[in-house]
Amino acid sequence: MKNIAIVGATGAVGQEILRLLQHREFPVSRLRCFASSRSVGKIVHFKSEEIALEALDEHSLKETDLAFFAAGGTISREWIPRTKCLVVDSSSAFRESAPLIIPEINIHALNTHRGVVSSPNCAATILLMPLFPLHRQYKVKRIVASTFQAASGAGAHLMEELKKETEAFLESRPFSHSLPFPYAFNLFPHNSLLHPSGYVEEERKMLYETRKILEDPEIQVSATCVRVPVLRAHSIAANVEFHKPFSLEAIYKAWAQVPGLKIFEDRSMNRFATPFDATGKDEIFCGRLRIDPSQPNTLEFWAVGDQLLKGAALNAVQIAEQLLLFH
Amino acid sequence: MKNIAIVGATGAVGQEILRLLQHREFPVSRLRCFASSRSVGKIVHFKSEEIALEALDEHSLKETDLAFFAAGGTISREWIPRTKCLVVDSSSAFRESAPLIIPEINIHALNTHRGVVSSPNCAATILLMPLFPLHRQYKVKRIVASTFQAASGAGAHLMEELKKETEAFLESRPFSHSLPFPYAFNLFPHNSLLHPSGYVEEERKMLYETRKILEDPEIQVSATCVRVPVLRAHSIAANVEFHKPFSLEAIYKAWAQVPGLKIFEDRSMNRFATPFDATGKDEIFCGRLRIDPSQPNTLEFWAVGDQLLKGAALNAVQIAEQLLLFH
Repeated sequence: MKNIAIVGATGAVGQEILRLLQHREFPVSRLRCFASSRSVGKIVHFKSEEIALEALDEHSLKETDLAFFAAGGTISREWIPRTKCLVVDSSSAFRESAPLIIPEINIHALNTHRGVVSSPNCAATILLMPLFPLHRQYKVKRIVASTFQAASGAGAHLMEELKKETEAFLESRPFSHSLPFPYAFNLFPHNSLLHPSGYVEEERKMLYETRKILEDPEIQVSATCVRVPVLRAHSIAANVEFHKPFSLEAIYKAWAQVPGLKIFEDRSMNRFATPFDATGKDEIFCGRLRIDPSQPNTLEFWAVGDQLLKGAALNAVQIAEQLLLFH
Repeated sequence: MKNIAIVGATGAVGQEILRLLQHREFPVSRLRCFASSRSVGKIVHFKSEEIALEALDEHSLKETDLAFFAAGGTISREWIPRTKCLVVDSSSAFRESAPLIIPEINIHALNTHRGVVSSPNCAATILLMPLFPLHRQYKVKRIVASTFQAASGAGAHLMEELKKETEAFLESRPFSHSLPFPYAFNLFPHNSLLHPSGYVEEERKMLYETRKILEDPEIQVSATCVRVPVLRAHSIAANVEFHKPFSLEAIYKAWAQVPGLKIFEDRSMNRFATPFDATGKDEIFCGRLRIDPSQPNTLEFWAVGDQLLKGAALNAVQIAEQLLLFH
């Protein structure tokens, strides 16, 4: 039994971590929850306990065995270097230097950690879960991917704003939105930092995190990331060129053996995964396999996953479960 | 001045054709509007006239000079072969046999018509408007495209249903939706006919219509078409490999000279086109140009256009304007 902390416990990811620790019977002896100053003193529920939210200070994590950081890159960069306990970080702050782990894919890389383990970008995770078994068999050469990303990726406030703005739109009421354009019934190219190349940070993560997690610096990725008016599941359309030939039968077979993947399609009904299907589910839903006839050894597939679960909180909790096995 | 008819005048496209004939001062001497039996007798307004909706019969189009067909493939297949007047068809019924025209691109092909001219698929049009000037200079080899298609593409009823279902969702009321899954805050792979290849009809149109309109049967296209909870503008993320090298400067310059294209981006504000920007606008909004470093001579771009305007009604009216010049 361990002393556990959640930093960012009121956020969309933090709340899911809290729920998962309970649901998965994580061996918690004491749980402390940290949030920004405006939430301090408020109560969250964990099993039969009421836990008062605290503000993080120099001494907060002294008796903690493992802390989940889910409060964004700024908080992670500020506090993780001063923290002596094990850390699972959901932000991108340490993804270059720390092991970047999706337990189903590269758990072996966990033993190189020096206290901090990073959980990958949500869109990268949803792409890589169906991709990694194929990479092992056919070796990925190049990926062209488009993402359809939910509001949750930007935090609980954007999910709330999307609902409130949509309500206002339907009632023809004015709404003062936080984005420079409407979000109700609208979508927009991902608004993370724009690099001189024209790619945004989110799209660069799809490249760098794919290379790091699949341990292949030759893999090429060109991504277009788009925020859509969906609440909490991301979808990805992936066009993948492999070095070796494949058959669809072999891919379905490989996918069927991967824990955490769910093949979701019914061709007789023309029915494939939607964000609604994957919402609240642990698995990445995949299917719509097509041989792309426009180029040799090329595959199209469609993957959908709950951004807050396997895309963030679930993966972090899975990493923590593995970390405790090692210690 | 000509006798004009609109078949499908109460549909989403038909209503825009009616509005555009007035707005563009189309030379109409008499306008007749046809709709399904349940709309017969209802009134539509054209300039200062009230026009009663009629049901189409064998004699309806005898004195018509030009008819717009915007009531779907079944009506087009049934009635167009029996029609002697000029026809501009918005459905896919005759896109293989008739000239398939985007006036800015291949107006020269109009003179091969034998009474019927087809207006292309909306997603193909939005892809091809920014693509054709680049094809002329650099020759397209292969396109990987993902679409983000609005409700309007399936008709006025789906736009209405999306609004009503979203309202019900926000009020936690049950809603009996016509799709086999929710559409409010959800998206789904395009549900047109699924071919054994795994591609749906909409995705095949992107291939065949691109080849026909650009008059290059060698062009390769692999598309993933997705319906998103947006009302009436489609977005497309296109990854295009050319035979020849290009520079971004030259592409911006080429685009700036194309009527009907609008370069919409502000890199200093990380601001690119959204469906909301393009709604109600005649132009296809394009930008987010990136050199894709993963492969030689490869470009990424983003295009957004009003599905009901350049994607359908506007293109049909532009074709009709050109047809009348020829006659």
